[in-house]
Amino acid sequence: MNTSRRVLLTLEYDGTAYAGWQRQENALAIQQVVEDALEELTGESIVITGASRTDAGVHAMGQNAHFDTHSSIPDEKFSFALNTMLSTDIRVRKSESAAADFHARFSAVGKVYRYRIHRAPHASAIERNTAAHVIYPLDLDLMAREAQSMLGTHDFTAFAASGSEAKTTVRTMRSIAVRARGERVEIWIEGDGFLYNMVRILAGTLIGVGSGKLPPGAITRAIETRDRLQLGVTAPPHGLTLMRVCYDDRAVGEYFALALEENYLK
Amino acid sequence: MNTSRRVLLTLEYDGTAYAGWQRQENALAIQQVVEDALEELTGESIVITGASRTDAGVHAMGQNAHFDTHSSIPDEKFSFALNTMLSTDIRVRKSESAAADFHARFSAVGKVYRYRIHRAPHASAIERNTAAHVIYPLDLDLMAREAQSMLGTHDFTAFAASGSEAKTTVRTMRSIAVRARGERVEIWIEGDGFLYNMVRILAGTLIGVGSGKLPPGAITRAIETRDRLQLGVTAPPHGLTLMRVCYDDRAVGEYFALALEENYLK
Repeated sequence: MNTSRRVLLTLEYDGTAYAGWQRQENALAIQQVVEDALEELTGESIVITGASRTDAGVHAMGQNAHFDTHSSIPDEKFSFALNTMLSTDIRVRKSESAAADFHARFSAVGKVYRYRIHRAPHASAIERNTAAHVIYPLDLDLMAREAQSMLGTHDFTAFAASGSEAKTTVRTMRSIAVRARGERVEIWIEGDGFLYNMVRILAGTLIGVGSGKLPPGAITRAIETRDRLQLGVTAPPHGLTLMRVCYDDRAVGEYFALALEENYLK
Repeated sequence: MNTSRRVLLTLEYDGTAYAGWQRQENALAIQQVVEDALEELTGESIVITGASRTDAGVHAMGQNAHFDTHSSIPDEKFSFALNTMLSTDIRVRKSESAAADFHARFSAVGKVYRYRIHRAPHASAIERNTAAHVIYPLDLDLMAREAQSMLGTHDFTAFAASGSEAKTTVRTMRSIAVRARGERVEIWIEGDGFLYNMVRILAGTLIGVGSGKLPPGAITRAIETRDRLQLGVTAPPHGLTLMRVCYDDRAVGEYFALALEENYLK
């Protein structure tokens, strides 16, 4: 038997058909689908650890997950082997060697999320599962200004959905952008970590401010008062995509710029 | 009973689940789904006439179709009423009044199509139904230069799939663009009409030239010799989207620019 070693996967998935990332009873999770494929491939009972436990309906362009294996399959071949077995709504973009002390979740120093909005009188057929439909006009300048209040290190208690298990609610947001083209609006954010539902609450708040339902300054007031009621509704899951997990502190800014460049309003 | 009048619909659809636009036996077509909804809505047996008979798997952001009705439903309300009845992968973006002699197909003076390619070692999970996956590198400059040979008025016999019912194979192409961002490549083309499978054969040819499998100059040689064998394979349907049908000659150039601006690599 080979020595055990650690392998890192980069995954893309369309979350529409799944109950989210994390394995659970009575519902199909992405983690389980990948673990089942790995077991079939290696004969080993493998547990994978994801960087982010994305919710039901949430997508990923760049989720990461690690696992340990004794298999003789070369690290970089796992992607090709797994993709022959997985459903086409889950793809392994890359598989590579990871250090024994690397951890997909705890080694992460940043994550980039995108929230996509489709603003039009009628919903989109083609983007029905990847953008939240907003029927009313949005003031993009107001949204962009409001978004800036997220930047910096704050106690984001107000942004934590109940059920959040985080030990601390202090997070640092380093980049945020609100972009629009035609009927699409996208919110991009990079931070060192996110509380449960934090990006969806942010999206709902920016939609609220942009549509005049919430007064500008809501984010600053919510941070100061830690009051969830200052913020907008939790925007629906299907507008959200985990774009990238960052493992290199120096490169965080570059990651954000590159992710915007490569994927902005794609 | 009200006087009969003509109504024009602008439709968006995800063609993945359908056997194409045109009503047929033993398979569900988009035309049939919309006609059934119109019948349920108005109590009339309505036939709709589409601008383009898109194939199975082909999508539309801007398909147009007209129909005649005696219904008292206001023209602009058909979109809202139909959208409450249609499956979410078909949306009516707009409904409006049309002149009695307007014809969705014969009044069209131009159409804009987009063909989307995803070039990467592994297929995309999220765009598995909306982009053709190409595994090998593509020379984009070569593709863009080759594409220019489409421009102008030519006999496009070589681009007509067998089964084409067109009376003439002469068409005028007024705009073409090859654009790339990150892993996505898009071919946009506007012309006064297209032969059956013409855009998919064009896409397959540009992929062939860009990947070195076909020599540059293939399009010019095919136009001159009318020989289908000079061209590449017919690219798969799911990369193709009908973006817009143009009914105003003057505005054709503007339509193309606007469509690119609003939808390019969306």
